[in-house]
Amino acid sequence: MISTREILERAKSTATLMSTVTDGDINRALCLMADSLVSHTGDILAANCADIDAARGRISDVMIDRLKLTEGRIAAMADGIREISRLPSPIGKVIDRRERPNGLVIEKVSCPMGVIAIIYESRPNVTSDAAALALKSGSAVILRGGKEAYNSSRAIVDALTAGVGEAGLPEFAVQLVDDTSRDSSYELMRAKGYVDLLIPRGGRGLISACVENATVPCLETGTGICHVYVDRDADISRALDIIENAKVQRPSVCNAAEVCLVHRDIAKEFLPKLKERLSSGTHPVELRCDPAAYAEIGGTPASDSDFDTEFLDYTLAVGVVPSVEAAISHIALHSTHHSEAIVSESREAQDYFTKRVDSAAVYVNASTRFTDGGEFGLGCEMGISTQKLHARGPLGIEELTTYKYIVRGNGQIR
Amino acid sequence: MISTREILERAKSTATLMSTVTDGDINRALCLMADSLVSHTGDILAANCADIDAARGRISDVMIDRLKLTEGRIAAMADGIREISRLPSPIGKVIDRRERPNGLVIEKVSCPMGVIAIIYESRPNVTSDAAALALKSGSAVILRGGKEAYNSSRAIVDALTAGVGEAGLPEFAVQLVDDTSRDSSYELMRAKGYVDLLIPRGGRGLISACVENATVPCLETGTGICHVYVDRDADISRALDIIENAKVQRPSVCNAAEVCLVHRDIAKEFLPKLKERLSSGTHPVELRCDPAAYAEIGGTPASDSDFDTEFLDYTLAVGVVPSVEAAISHIALHSTHHSEAIVSESREAQDYFTKRVDSAAVYVNASTRFTDGGEFGLGCEMGISTQKLHARGPLGIEELTTYKYIVRGNGQIR
Repeated sequence: MISTREILERAKSTATLMSTVTDGDINRALCLMADSLVSHTGDILAANCADIDAARGRISDVMIDRLKLTEGRIAAMADGIREISRLPSPIGKVIDRRERPNGLVIEKVSCPMGVIAIIYESRPNVTSDAAALALKSGSAVILRGGKEAYNSSRAIVDALTAGVGEAGLPEFAVQLVDDTSRDSSYELMRAKGYVDLLIPRGGRGLISACVENATVPCLETGTGICHVYVDRDADISRALDIIENAKVQRPSVCNAAEVCLVHRDIAKEFLPKLKERLSSGTHPVELRCDPAAYAEIGGTPASDSDFDTEFLDYTLAVGVVPSVEAAISHIALHSTHHSEAIVSESREAQDYFTKRVDSAAVYVNASTRFTDGGEFGLGCEMGISTQKLHARGPLGIEELTTYKYIVRGNGQIR
Repeated sequence: MISTREILERAKSTATLMSTVTDGDINRALCLMADSLVSHTGDILAANCADIDAARGRISDVMIDRLKLTEGRIAAMADGIREISRLPSPIGKVIDRRERPNGLVIEKVSCPMGVIAIIYESRPNVTSDAAALALKSGSAVILRGGKEAYNSSRAIVDALTAGVGEAGLPEFAVQLVDDTSRDSSYELMRAKGYVDLLIPRGGRGLISACVENATVPCLETGTGICHVYVDRDADISRALDIIENAKVQRPSVCNAAEVCLVHRDIAKEFLPKLKERLSSGTHPVELRCDPAAYAEIGGTPASDSDFDTEFLDYTLAVGVVPSVEAAISHIALHSTHHSEAIVSESREAQDYFTKRVDSAAVYVNASTRFTDGGEFGLGCEMGISTQKLHARGPLGIEELTTYKYIVRGNGQIR
């Protein structure tokens, strides 16, 4: 077993080597990595079986499903890598250029982060997505996956590494941490001078642990307590479509809605329709209602914590508010600053909402489910940032880069 | 005394109010703050005298000088604020706009951070600079200054607050923390959900304490172990001018050079001239030489730590390297990733250096002393970032903002 320290040292040297690798080299490597993934399908499935056998009975069926790979899923992972290879390079772009009166030419140029570490949980497909994205952004990547998926991740990384080698890229461009104890996560979080960017991908516990312990720069990704506010001036049928979609289309993801706030002037008309719409599907939604909503439609009385819970399930907290201002105040108090929507035909209410709501994505008359790298046209993503430093919302390859200033002169001094 | 918790609560509410304040309002407030600073000159000088009397004998003369205010310095602080008021607003800019095939219009719009906290040391002028910059960027600002300068900072903030009030801006837009014990710094570092951006301005101890303890997003500003590499193909007279300037023009600042690396092929010719040039000024420079340089020009033999020291003084570590690659490797190991320069007439060496050196600013044939908001044409700055996340190099007002996605639709669902 290679120590985490050794992996960090290797990644750091690799980052320096990566600065002279071209986008063409990277794209060729990505394609070979995708091919290698497919050609190692047998090994990967065998490793995955071992993980699943070991996990059965110890984790929930939902988790087993997340862990499970199939030939189709591996092919999809390979396609994902090929798609990343077709994105334009985020490196070497002149973001800004200034010629100063003294003749200095100052260019702000995008460049790789250096070493990107990703700590994630049990979904083995994150292994290839994260590796491909970080590599495309020109960085060396360190993957630290969940214990339950270790064998699968190891087999995937071995396949990817074969592709990296075939392409002639630095051999440690993609590394997996073998130690799946907490020690290795902690070591990555504290690897000041080695890790330029740490991205935790997983549940709240993992993300808090990173925020709490990291001394390396870290991007918080996200939990989403997303709100849909149905304004007095909402088109009701549109509001019903949006809430239904935001809640039930895929309730387990972070951009699904957890809370519906309704303006009191339309509550009497809207809430019964909401109840009808959300109880009629194949998966009826449990409504946890504040007193005013409960008075209209019954359901389950909401406890205080229901407005601060990421249900990730067929459950929706419903509240009645007296105004758009009150909706915004509620959101300011309870949101995780991921995605919020207003449904309203009033331009004034829309503008007030978009200006005041402090979240990564603020929607007008659309479902919160669109907060996603693919849907935003960024190609793909490493997660959704809910912090304000560096990047907010979907983390595409551009968000995985930094910049430097290149200043050219002819002897200028101060 | 108002508790730090109360200050945090007030700042958070203020940040929400700030989202509807216009740039015109802010600029008017900045001008009134500048006027108020001047009209309170007497109060500020009296408070400053009290600080200096209390500090005398307890801190060095250099520190006393940093602490000392004069009518002229206060006028300069006021001018600095007026200059900031004339900068274009960094808020509300559409950074990117995409129309998606489904009709969604996605705009990435710059917006205020929210609450910016600055922890700084004994220079009271930072109080007004930092307040003005953070306010211009649309955020509420919390200042936590050094104990030695407390009375001065309090008097400055009282003057600024009078201007804020007169302009009708939210009254807690600028606040000073009264508690100058370590507790208050610690509380700011851990004020998750209250502080959106923490900026430490000061020595290495302060910055490490923030990096180590902060759970809020933090921008590391900088210590600078800056290198000047004199290539085989350097114009020697240009190289001498650049090193002299980078070393002696103002040795106490972070963009001053601390290390000179010389290609071995020109060491014999260059080093005696370097010695002559740096010993001839009003402040002779002590040269700490590695064995190869020592063999040419004597001086003080360098210890290992001399290549890892931010001297901030008339001292320069001098080393001989066999190639541009070796210079780059040395820099990778010893630099603080602030500013480095190559002096060379070879375009190939220049390009190799700018591509490979991983620092905020990489110079070709110019002094490292230009790494500065004003010199870069950013107007002014909050410090120099040496980290890669969010912002590198001079932190101007744009670097004090974040963005959000505003997504407009007409009922889109997934």
